[in-house]
Amino acid sequence: MKLQIAVDLITGVQTLALAGELQGKVDIFEVGTPIILRDGLHTVTAIKSAYPNLTVLADTKIADAGALEGGDAFAAGADIATVLGIADDETILGVVRAAKAHGKQVMVDMLQVQDLEGRAAQLDNMGVDYICVHTAVDAQIHGKSPYDDLARISSVVKQAKTAIAGGVNMAAIPLLKQLAPHLVVAGNSLTSAADVAQAVMEMQAALNN
Amino acid sequence: MKLQIAVDLITGVQTLALAGELQGKVDIFEVGTPIILRDGLHTVTAIKSAYPNLTVLADTKIADAGALEGGDAFAAGADIATVLGIADDETILGVVRAAKAHGKQVMVDMLQVQDLEGRAAQLDNMGVDYICVHTAVDAQIHGKSPYDDLARISSVVKQAKTAIAGGVNMAAIPLLKQLAPHLVVAGNSLTSAADVAQAVMEMQAALNN
Repeated sequence: MKLQIAVDLITGVQTLALAGELQGKVDIFEVGTPIILRDGLHTVTAIKSAYPNLTVLADTKIADAGALEGGDAFAAGADIATVLGIADDETILGVVRAAKAHGKQVMVDMLQVQDLEGRAAQLDNMGVDYICVHTAVDAQIHGKSPYDDLARISSVVKQAKTAIAGGVNMAAIPLLKQLAPHLVVAGNSLTSAADVAQAVMEMQAALNN
Repeated sequence: MKLQIAVDLITGVQTLALAGELQGKVDIFEVGTPIILRDGLHTVTAIKSAYPNLTVLADTKIADAGALEGGDAFAAGADIATVLGIADDETILGVVRAAKAHGKQVMVDMLQVQDLEGRAAQLDNMGVDYICVHTAVDAQIHGKSPYDDLARISSVVKQAKTAIAGGVNMAAIPLLKQLAPHLVVAGNSLTSAADVAQAVMEMQAALNN
């Protein structure tokens, strides 16, 4: 399993420093939506300029204007951009086309998708690279978690890689090993560690030992 | 009816210049999602610094982390921030609480909401200021339009103001007068005019004569 760190709660400059610390240690470095909201895609561009070998995901959560916004994200340097699974098919396909034009990739964020199996099967035929089940931060307070959701889509997704996000931490490792997604996305459980690089390496080892 | 201009396809600097031209002429000036994606909320801050009396909406399309992202948008100067109607209730309420803390307002974007009446009724009880039916740009190519959607929510929304977005142009004025939303959002049909300020004043006059 690959590991993606979701970085949200720090400034653009701190994010750039963390990217430098984690290059070569984490599979995918996610610039989170709050960072993009504050400073736009400039943080993504800065990271890719400084650390071109680090795979950077821009958590753009595109909901409309897929070709335009996807094109902007890839032009800014994002290796992977996210689009919401609830978006219109044409939005998804617009991001997919932009990705192919730039030689980049698309992750679908399944946030708030109700018919998970049905939508995942449709998305899997649209040429997206990753389908990520995701329990919203704000939904985690209701006790929701994404593990059942991952099981639901795993049986229908044939071409895309599966991913899981939303409150993932070390306690979930045994469950993640059973579910075996291609990619695990962890945020706070890594970024709140005293030594983030160490926490990343421990989680990566635990996922793959 | 009030008029909001949605500004999407120009740079941050051009957006600032257009805001100066339209202050005192348009009810709400929307900084569109593509502009926020490229430059973050800095364009909003620049417009509010230069033209404090212009009401500025940041089309943040918040999908998660409502308190955090809403708080950031209002702190950056947005008078109104948008949240997706498909978001978890806690996300909506987080943005509403952030708005109240800053003395600002919330618009819910009903993009891709399936049960329009049911969701509008719920949102109307959450203290949001505007509920906006919205046909995605990418869905307009399927011939979709937001007018039927406006009729569907108008009967159930009692406290919030109603708004409509998605391909609105001068040809729709007679229909809009029948439907009588509180707010009409127009983008390309205004911003593509040779004289944008003139187009704004003409649409405003047509809506209210």
